[in-house]
Amino acid sequence: MIIGKVVGTVVSTRKEQELEGLKFLLVRGQDLENKPTSTLVVAVDAVGAGVGEVVLYASGSSARQTVATRDRPVDATIMAIVDQIEVGGALKYVKD
Amino acid sequence: MIIGKVVGTVVSTRKEQELEGLKFLLVRGQDLENKPTSTLVVAVDAVGAGVGEVVLYASGSSARQTVATRDRPVDATIMAIVDQIEVGGALKYVKD
Amino acid sequence: MIIGKVVGTVVSTRKEQELEGLKFLLVRGQDLENKPTSTLVVAVDAVGAGVGEVVLYASGSSARQTVATRDRPVDATIMAIVDQIEVGGALKYVKD
Amino acid sequence: MIIGKVVGTVVSTRKEQELEGLKFLLVRGQDLENKPTSTLVVAVDAVGAGVGEVVLYASGSSARQTVATRDRPVDATIMAIVDQIEVGGALKYVKD
Amino acid sequence: MIIGKVVGTVVSTRKEQELEGLKFLLVRGQDLENKPTSTLVVAVDAVGAGVGEVVLYASGSSARQTVATRDRPVDATIMAIVDQIEVGGALKYVKD
Repeated sequence: MIIGKVVGTVVSTRKEQELEGLKFLLVRGQDLENKPTSTLVVAVDAVGAGVGEVVLYASGSSARQTVATRDRPVDATIMAIVDQIEVGGALKYVKD
Repeated sequence: MIIGKVVGTVVSTRKEQELEGLKFLLVRGQDLENKPTSTLVVAVDAVGAGVGEVVLYASGSSARQTVATRDRPVDATIMAIVDQIEVGGALKYVKD
Repeated sequence: MIIGKVVGTVVSTRKEQELEGLKFLLVRGQDLENKPTSTLVVAVDAVGAGVGEVVLYASGSSARQTVATRDRPVDATIMAIVDQIEVGGALKYVKD
Repeated sequence: MIIGKVVGTVVSTRKEQELEGLKFLLVRGQDLENKPTSTLVVAVDAVGAGVGEVVLYASGSSARQTVATRDRPVDATIMAIVDQIEVGGALKYVKD
Repeated sequence: MIIGKVVGTVVSTRKEQELEGLKFLLVRGQDLENKPTSTLVVAVDAVGAGVGEVVLYASGSSARQTVATRDRPVDATIMAIVDQIEVGGALKYVKD
């Protein structure tokens, strides 16, 4: 999984029918200094994540291994909301 | 999924038979300032997208999870036409 | 799929037995100005492509969804020979 | 698989239920001079790896081919703890 | 598949049990001038490749489509030992 921050939302009315009812969140990759990377994906939300939260998302066929996304044409899914990132004994990120 | 803009079309008469009848669209990745990225893919259209539209496309095995592409040798499919992208409370893109 | 040009061939006598009989073509990615990109893959040919032709190849599990490659350990397959690429109303590439 | 070093941990209480009980380790890619690369992933641990260890992790659907991760929405799994890396007859890395 | 050169070996005693008995080879990507690229993977050997040889390796689920790797958590497998690479009528590489 990749660490990212939910920075926005994408709205689409005309879409593949198997995507109906799924929430599309815009996720920007984030490094260990909490700075944005160049990675930008639109991920489906499986955990109730909101804008501003730091999350983990999975890509590829793994993105379809959840109740919400099974057999749906989804290639990126938010799997977890991050509470804490620890590197070398130091807390690099703590959720508010 | 990745945000991209449909910038053109690709025509092929000699192709794998399982691709017959599918429309090949040229999609250029697009960043949050609506500027093109270096990403360039040929995606199959599952939603009736046209040149000039901003879309979401899925890659890998997820690209085959639609009625149009199931069991076909497709690794990129346009899944949605984007109406609106919102980042930090501001609309970054609105479909005309 | 990705646009590329067939630039050469790879010969191997000692290989996984499930690859016997498949033709290995060297494909260099190509941008919309018909210039080579840094992408270089060895793809299996499913359509009778030859050196010098511009093609579309699929990657990953999608590369195995053809009669020639089904259940074989192939991760890149040439799916189509490109006749024409049109961008913004202009023909960027036309097959000779 | 990719060579990386376990540099930290990620804690999440709100996550996809199929991820319950799995340990999330932060893995930084490592080159042959044992220097960090730009690759940063959160991998699930299948072998009891700890912070500071050099490991191999697998990505994509292969990450789900272990007892611990089967059918779970995991796209990166630590598969091995590295004892030794040898390049050109020289030991580039030896575990303490 | 990608062209690479086997540059070394990786030894691991503590690993996922389904990897027991497989040989881990360190493969560095190689361009058409036979110069190393930045790509570095640890691949499982399906063809008896040795250090110094130029090989083709497959990634992702395709890496599991061999007798040696089926249903094992492998995401990169050496599929062929390269005898010859020809580009534009010139031999770019010939095995000794």
